Amino acid sequence: MSEIKFENNSVDFPKGYEVYSVNCGLADKSRDDLTLIYSNVPAKCAIVFTKNQVKAAPVLWDQMITEDASDKQAIIINVKNANACTGIKGFENSEKTANLVSEMLDIKPSEVIVCSTGVIGEQLDFSKIENGIKLLEKEYKNKNIDGLKAASAILTTDTKIKTASAVFELDGKKIKIGAMCKGSGMIRPNMATMLSFVCTDCNIRQEVLQEALDLIVKDTYNMISVDGDMSTNDTALILANGLAENREITDLNSPEGKIFFKALLEIETELAKSIVKDGEGATKFVEVNISNAISKQDARTLARAVIESNLVKTAIFGEDANWGRIVSSLGASEAKFDPNKTILEINGLPIFKNGEIFTEFLDEIDKSFKDKEIIIDINCNLGSDRATGWGCDLSYDYVKINGDYRT
Amino acid sequence: MSEIKFENNSVDFPKGYEVYSVNCGLADKSRDDLTLIYSNVPAKCAIVFTKNQVKAAPVLWDQMITEDASDKQAIIINVKNANACTGIKGFENSEKTANLVSEMLDIKPSEVIVCSTGVIGEQLDFSKIENGIKLLEKEYKNKNIDGLKAASAILTTDTKIKTASAVFELDGKKIKIGAMCKGSGMIRPNMATMLSFVCTDCNIRQEVLQEALDLIVKDTYNMISVDGDMSTNDTALILANGLAENREITDLNSPEGKIFFKALLEIETELAKSIVKDGEGATKFVEVNISNAISKQDARTLARAVIESNLVKTAIFGEDANWGRIVSSLGASEAKFDPNKTILEINGLPIFKNGEIFTEFLDEIDKSFKDKEIIIDINCNLGSDRATGWGCDLSYDYVKINGDYRT
Repeated sequence: MSEIKFENNSVDFPKGYEVYSVNCGLADKSRDDLTLIYSNVPAKCAIVFTKNQVKAAPVLWDQMITEDASDKQAIIINVKNANACTGIKGFENSEKTANLVSEMLDIKPSEVIVCSTGVIGEQLDFSKIENGIKLLEKEYKNKNIDGLKAASAILTTDTKIKTASAVFELDGKKIKIGAMCKGSGMIRPNMATMLSFVCTDCNIRQEVLQEALDLIVKDTYNMISVDGDMSTNDTALILANGLAENREITDLNSPEGKIFFKALLEIETELAKSIVKDGEGATKFVEVNISNAISKQDARTLARAVIESNLVKTAIFGEDANWGRIVSSLGASEAKFDPNKTILEINGLPIFKNGEIFTEFLDEIDKSFKDKEIIIDINCNLGSDRATGWGCDLSYDYVKINGDYRT
Repeated sequence: MSEIKFENNSVDFPKGYEVYSVNCGLADKSRDDLTLIYSNVPAKCAIVFTKNQVKAAPVLWDQMITEDASDKQAIIINVKNANACTGIKGFENSEKTANLVSEMLDIKPSEVIVCSTGVIGEQLDFSKIENGIKLLEKEYKNKNIDGLKAASAILTTDTKIKTASAVFELDGKKIKIGAMCKGSGMIRPNMATMLSFVCTDCNIRQEVLQEALDLIVKDTYNMISVDGDMSTNDTALILANGLAENREITDLNSPEGKIFFKALLEIETELAKSIVKDGEGATKFVEVNISNAISKQDARTLARAVIESNLVKTAIFGEDANWGRIVSSLGASEAKFDPNKTILEINGLPIFKNGEIFTEFLDEIDKSFKDKEIIIDINCNLGSDRATGWGCDLSYDYVKINGDYRT
């Protein structure tokens, strides 16, 4: 077996994938706002949706067409309008979008995934989508494939494109994974205003692909938080078109399954971290490692409790080593936690053990709060389970971006 | 039965209560930082503590001495230091504090409730407490009772004193309730960095008093949120010394029990609302009314989901009628919620029904976001249960206050 080679900020998609984007007038002319991802052969599709009970129209469409685990070939993505809380008309607009894309590519509407992101509650100006799909058709005919432009076109309040890729060998065949995502605010455990698109040429059974995605989401997209809010539109999906011609992976625990899983986990972890690093108004990246928790579930709950605490987040923004807020946030969670057994380390140095402050490294810890990355390690000493969560600080700019402050 | 007369900002305590405060050097000389509440006869005591698994030393002391529901006579409260995450030494400091107060008042240490609020993780400078109790003794001997000064002395980042009182008659006897509280940040459902002290001369059985407090906390202190953080020190308590000489209330459902409950609910509701109105950095007060939820629990969960959403809070700060975020926060909660059945009204005007926007009052709603109070009514149309939650916006100043920004 070969090593896995990773690359961030790559926009090189695997065999058989074509990526196009245009401006259709939803955003101003300075940027693209409508993106097409197309596999020129049918692909296995694994997908995970927001757990929000309010699901946007495109999510309802996608749920409907992915119910039977059939192959997919295209993803169409618009920004600036989430097509959420838009009733029957909203659903019809998603359906019409899928219909137009299917005509253009000569595939079935049920093979077209629709994704929207942006403002909630406004009806789409469908004439813009219609016009945009005509523009996409030109790009498609001219084969103006441009992954970089597309990775920009799916962004909303993001300030950076978010991509990752991996290359490795299975059965002497070169396998590629190429991925891009968007997300910046309304990010919480249990998915986020987040869209994540992973394309691979790996040959893998659909159920195995879905199993991999379900497992990975728990430790990646469900373990990041920018603001503790959950969106109506979040979708993470993988297409696998098999063009690498490796022997079909039928078991995640086979040697090949394990390599694929490892590569996919690394890709999705990288994308998840890139979302919080680019969190709305974020000035610091925070990693919380929980060890020796009494269960996996409790480890995750504890990590989330820290990354979701506004008081921890503002302290980190203020470069104030207010470790008491970290301990308090752990205690406030529903997970089992004993302050008298816990060891808290910040940036590698202990600050709290035996139920009270440990003062030896106070000055060093205080100084390390000027760093751009803050690592918080919490040893619960209760069991043997681990989890990691990623977050960011809460800054004036977060308030500004989301307050749409009009004065 | 007489009517209940309420008064806010009253610092007139009922018969038998003496309230003193001094500066002992924990805070700067401009304010008092150590407060004594004393009932000159033994009083029934009902108490509710933080649910945080990390409990401050004074909370552990209070839990120990209130286990047997015995009478209490004194409450000693310090600010500037929470005496939390301070290990065995911290507990000993709380115990020593109770001992000194008991000597001064010639009561048992187990009759002295100890409360602390302030920074987590630092040991108390006990010499200051010791000196402060000597100063309190002078005030006590000189009967320098001053409720207003005491209501200020228990505050931390609060900008206003928080008091309330009620007067009513039972069996021809005049009953008084006098109360004060503190709390501004680290406020969430399930209690807060909040201390609430209610004193009454009503004659009531201890179990009935505790039953009343347990019920009331669910609809008052557990339904407010400033920042979604839960503290290590939160305590709500009631002393009832019986000096009004009414017939003992032995049942909350008796006519007398109902009047007492009504008065107490009103007092605690007022105090709870005063906390969020004075929330750290708050510029707006938000009331969320849930109706026709499928259960009481779900109604509470839905109300909290809205008041805890950072995206809703920043939109309100920005005076941006971003109602989609309200619907999204409801959907993200664990409570049963169907967007297609829900009617959302903001400041009395409908904005969302039948799963989509209702545009008739858009301009008026938009304008009403300039108001200082925002009322959000959500009719779930699923059942018949109600709940109300109170919160505030999320402003630059919240970030500033909690970031301890050092530049």
